Amino acid sequence: MSIRIGLFGAGRIGRTHAKAVSTIPGAELVAVYDPDPQATSFLVNRYGTEAASETDQLLANPSIDAVLICTPTDSHAALVEAAAHAGKAILCEKPIDLDLGRARACLQVVAERGATMAIGFQRRFDRHFRALKQRIEAGEIGDPELVQITSRDPGPPPQDYVLRSGGLFRDMMIHDFDMARFILGKEFVRVAAAGSVLVQSRIGEAGDVDTASATLATADERLCVITNSRRATYGYDQRVEVHGSKGMIAVGNPHPTAVTLADASGFRADRLVDPFMERYADAYRAEIEAFCDSVSAGKPPSPDGNDGLQALLLADAAARSLREGQSVAVEGNVR
Amino acid sequence: MSIRIGLFGAGRIGRTHAKAVSTIPGAELVAVYDPDPQATSFLVNRYGTEAASETDQLLANPSIDAVLICTPTDSHAALVEAAAHAGKAILCEKPIDLDLGRARACLQVVAERGATMAIGFQRRFDRHFRALKQRIEAGEIGDPELVQITSRDPGPPPQDYVLRSGGLFRDMMIHDFDMARFILGKEFVRVAAAGSVLVQSRIGEAGDVDTASATLATADERLCVITNSRRATYGYDQRVEVHGSKGMIAVGNPHPTAVTLADASGFRADRLVDPFMERYADAYRAEIEAFCDSVSAGKPPSPDGNDGLQALLLADAAARSLREGQSVAVEGNVR
Amino acid sequence: MSIRIGLFGAGRIGRTHAKAVSTIPGAELVAVYDPDPQATSFLVNRYGTEAASETDQLLANPSIDAVLICTPTDSHAALVEAAAHAGKAILCEKPIDLDLGRARACLQVVAERGATMAIGFQRRFDRHFRALKQRIEAGEIGDPELVQITSRDPGPPPQDYVLRSGGLFRDMMIHDFDMARFILGKEFVRVAAAGSVLVQSRIGEAGDVDTASATLATADERLCVITNSRRATYGYDQRVEVHGSKGMIAVGNPHPTAVTLADASGFRADRLVDPFMERYADAYRAEIEAFCDSVSAGKPPSPDGNDGLQALLLADAAARSLREGQSVAVEGNVR
Amino acid sequence: MSIRIGLFGAGRIGRTHAKAVSTIPGAELVAVYDPDPQATSFLVNRYGTEAASETDQLLANPSIDAVLICTPTDSHAALVEAAAHAGKAILCEKPIDLDLGRARACLQVVAERGATMAIGFQRRFDRHFRALKQRIEAGEIGDPELVQITSRDPGPPPQDYVLRSGGLFRDMMIHDFDMARFILGKEFVRVAAAGSVLVQSRIGEAGDVDTASATLATADERLCVITNSRRATYGYDQRVEVHGSKGMIAVGNPHPTAVTLADASGFRADRLVDPFMERYADAYRAEIEAFCDSVSAGKPPSPDGNDGLQALLLADAAARSLREGQSVAVEGNVR
Repeated sequence: MSIRIGLFGAGRIGRTHAKAVSTIPGAELVAVYDPDPQATSFLVNRYGTEAASETDQLLANPSIDAVLICTPTDSHAALVEAAAHAGKAILCEKPIDLDLGRARACLQVVAERGATMAIGFQRRFDRHFRALKQRIEAGEIGDPELVQITSRDPGPPPQDYVLRSGGLFRDMMIHDFDMARFILGKEFVRVAAAGSVLVQSRIGEAGDVDTASATLATADERLCVITNSRRATYGYDQRVEVHGSKGMIAVGNPHPTAVTLADASGFRADRLVDPFMERYADAYRAEIEAFCDSVSAGKPPSPDGNDGLQALLLADAAARSLREGQSVAVEGNVR
Repeated sequence: MSIRIGLFGAGRIGRTHAKAVSTIPGAELVAVYDPDPQATSFLVNRYGTEAASETDQLLANPSIDAVLICTPTDSHAALVEAAAHAGKAILCEKPIDLDLGRARACLQVVAERGATMAIGFQRRFDRHFRALKQRIEAGEIGDPELVQITSRDPGPPPQDYVLRSGGLFRDMMIHDFDMARFILGKEFVRVAAAGSVLVQSRIGEAGDVDTASATLATADERLCVITNSRRATYGYDQRVEVHGSKGMIAVGNPHPTAVTLADASGFRADRLVDPFMERYADAYRAEIEAFCDSVSAGKPPSPDGNDGLQALLLADAAARSLREGQSVAVEGNVR
Repeated sequence: MSIRIGLFGAGRIGRTHAKAVSTIPGAELVAVYDPDPQATSFLVNRYGTEAASETDQLLANPSIDAVLICTPTDSHAALVEAAAHAGKAILCEKPIDLDLGRARACLQVVAERGATMAIGFQRRFDRHFRALKQRIEAGEIGDPELVQITSRDPGPPPQDYVLRSGGLFRDMMIHDFDMARFILGKEFVRVAAAGSVLVQSRIGEAGDVDTASATLATADERLCVITNSRRATYGYDQRVEVHGSKGMIAVGNPHPTAVTLADASGFRADRLVDPFMERYADAYRAEIEAFCDSVSAGKPPSPDGNDGLQALLLADAAARSLREGQSVAVEGNVR
Repeated sequence: MSIRIGLFGAGRIGRTHAKAVSTIPGAELVAVYDPDPQATSFLVNRYGTEAASETDQLLANPSIDAVLICTPTDSHAALVEAAAHAGKAILCEKPIDLDLGRARACLQVVAERGATMAIGFQRRFDRHFRALKQRIEAGEIGDPELVQITSRDPGPPPQDYVLRSGGLFRDMMIHDFDMARFILGKEFVRVAAAGSVLVQSRIGEAGDVDTASATLATADERLCVITNSRRATYGYDQRVEVHGSKGMIAVGNPHPTAVTLADASGFRADRLVDPFMERYADAYRAEIEAFCDSVSAGKPPSPDGNDGLQALLLADAAARSLREGQSVAVEGNVR
């Protein structure tokens, strides 16, 4: 039996998800809602899905099992709650909300309704990072001690996105916070962050930073060091290395082709895949597939709402650390 | 308008093609014929296609635009001819026939009927080799002088396959001959081959070799050196390097993941992708897509029947060179 | 004319320097002093040098142009001062002294006497890091923004060394602080450090850490992130990557051989060179050569005493940051 | 006790050897002979060695234990014979003579006089190739089956060198023939060669080729495929890969530095080391050291005169194969 899916949001991520659904045998896109009729009709035409006239109409459709929430951040929490009330399984893009209290209230509703809720940290489904996680769990590097994560975007987002994003820590580094938690399987209790405006002064004018680092520690003193930048001329840079008592495991950047060219100027390999939707195309597909499997099997999905909340807690702590110029405790995690 | 496709042969390659067709918006698998009812019903169930009761029934279906020929080699030529007579576009797996005369006669029929015919050298559609070709054409290495190709299968095929295969040169190295022609865009006029039985003595008992090399020369003295083996413990090995007047360009083996593990024993990367259907999954899909595009646009496909014939000529020359212990001229190419 | 050299300390580093001197045409080792007669006679026998009976005897030798100070840290400052008074050029191993005040007083003497003084940060002379520096200066990555340094020792030092070392930041990370200053050509004004005891509990019992990170910022907000560990099963790990406005430049770990082995378990490269004297053998030689060139030409050496002091300032700041759990200003650098 | 060495030939290789001797504790350069007084006095001044007025004077010096023969090829055989008569140990650059009969006669004299004679195939002493050999002998790839060697010079030699060189097979590929014998520890019985003039037409006018391949087979059917070119814009290219029953081992090209630069044009690594004296500087030194050790210990050196002869036999067979357009038996090796 196929999982019947409704989609909120027909933008960049919504289209990526719609495409992924179309290639999964056990899933079917039955309705889409987006206030922009042009975006909606693109998906209607391409995948033969139905256009919902409003949110409630989509949620009222009893044949829909699950919804994908790909709308702007400020509508996430309300849609999650409405979907939970309507008895739908939910896959919500990160973050749940920029405000921690709002996010918590939303998860409370999800818990009360017993709704199935997954959060869209697609990197966990990337085959490279998944292999890293599995091999750490298999004990190949012994006990993990230090995680180093480098994430760099090819270029800064538009200013209106910057203004609405909640800042680099909540918008970009949140993925790395989730990755660090995923890898170690532990919570962090302290965060110290640094940040600079080096790429574009307009980002600083928006009160944000474009280059940043964060150092995190667990209760048992495992460390994680993350660096982020909104600039990478060589393409979308996403690397992780984990050091353990027996060795080191690293995920490097996959190159688009295995071609090397050598001439009088040296040896050259490809620029990296860019943008992130292409880098993570397979991961997005695997994410939807895992979500559908959870829904089919009636099993709790992973990552779930709490994973979304924990990453947000770390992002908030990092932002606070940057403001205060000192290392800060992560709210609720001082065990 | 969609290209409506009929499939002959529901074995390994047939299934790979059927899957590829299912992901191409402009293509539709409408009928399949295989004498094995189990193989047939697998595809019928999976893709909702129709089972033809015999070859002629499939070819008589006027709604079918094109056929994919994935049957055992000895049926290729007859099916190509029948399809040409039926007015279908044809994508035929290599080789057209193990016998050069039979292959030529078949292509004669194709030519007389003005049929569209592509040959299944999927490596030309692999993104790595395609990038290599494009960059050579863009002049990045200047004038190409020397091509080096390494192809190694993870393990030898079953003995019945060995016996029917026409030998390593016609079965395995034929892909490398096509790659060499593809890269240089020229014909070879001389071939010298060497071969040994080092992997399994049963292969020698079948009159074949399992380890071989061939050196080819064009009329303007460009060289190509190919090595093949039926053994590669580290996975399916497929490499090309091309030296030109300005530099070198090489395609290495893509690894399944970008993971490196370092410990007291050193640094380790993944074993290679294996088997070839997985290594070339994207290439098979791109091959079908290009074929459908040719059919839609009414344009001649590439590689075509003559490419199949030329590769066979080189394979025949290599086999003859090995028998005679000397370099041999390629029939018809002494220009 | 050859530079005539006296050596204080015939231990591990002293022997490395003595060997380097023996291969430099313009340098000659004429005397060595070490309280341990066995260590002294090893060098006397190997290089035909003279054994000084005490420090003063060596310094009183008018034929000696320059001295290399390779004794335990707590004797560095006094020897530097004595050598400065004796009119010798000085190459002193890092650090000048664990106590900042003592180091400053020592440099004051050096300045008053107008002595030539170099400090032993050999990594600046490694051909890999030198190439990185030159290419950054040539503008290949534009304006540098973020430096990431990973240094990991193969294993922890003996406990008596740990106790005398001044702690990981003054003993180990001090090299990375110097590298960061060398790369950016700027001073850092703030440091935030983190540290853990994950390798051996005895290191924690000594009041030190074995795993650490530091984040540094310049007055113009350039960032540097350093990680250190006393454990690396795969050999001595020394990497730097620098991100700039136009691109990234990185120094990876050179492997002892260019050998790759591929088998059913994947692809394997060598463990890294270990110990550091072997990794940096060429750098130590180049360091001595540059020092001799400075002495010959009467030109100020680089890195010099102030470089030693600045690195120590950063190490002190890092240790303080770790104690206080907050980012700290670097003494004297708040510009 | 030190080995006292006389040097014939103060050209490029002679100077390389003189420098190597100067860094070996157990060796001393005591005399040099070269008809060119300028070349001679360079070495006399640099290493404080004595200038012999003629060949016989050097050989008559009873304090000399061993001679290095680095003169033009046509004088090798006579010098070897004279040195053997004078009771000196001999390290002769390859080849012994371009004429096989002359080389054999020379080795006959060496054998009759019981002289110690080594031949200068320095690649056997390169640490990368030595590691490859050791690991094959340790069984890491099982039974070797196929050797692939790529050697490419950065550019063609001057025309007078081409004319005197004996041709690409005797001058350049002879090193690869020796490498193949070294790796497999077996003799080859058949050779098939191909060759082209693609780099410079003047090379063809001299009756030589500048691009070539050779395929060799042992009596037990192990294969070796070699490619050579007089052109490599990316530097001196020297690679070997060996396939065995259990796996593959390869030596890639070491890059001068471990630096990678990434920018909008992709990822770049250094051009290769060039020229060969720099690529093999350590190997030349290790070669001299091993030769001195043999002389000291009174043990037969390796590679020896017969290794020189066998490589020449293969070069002759390759040249003959190219002329005749067929695979040829190697003289004396049809076992």
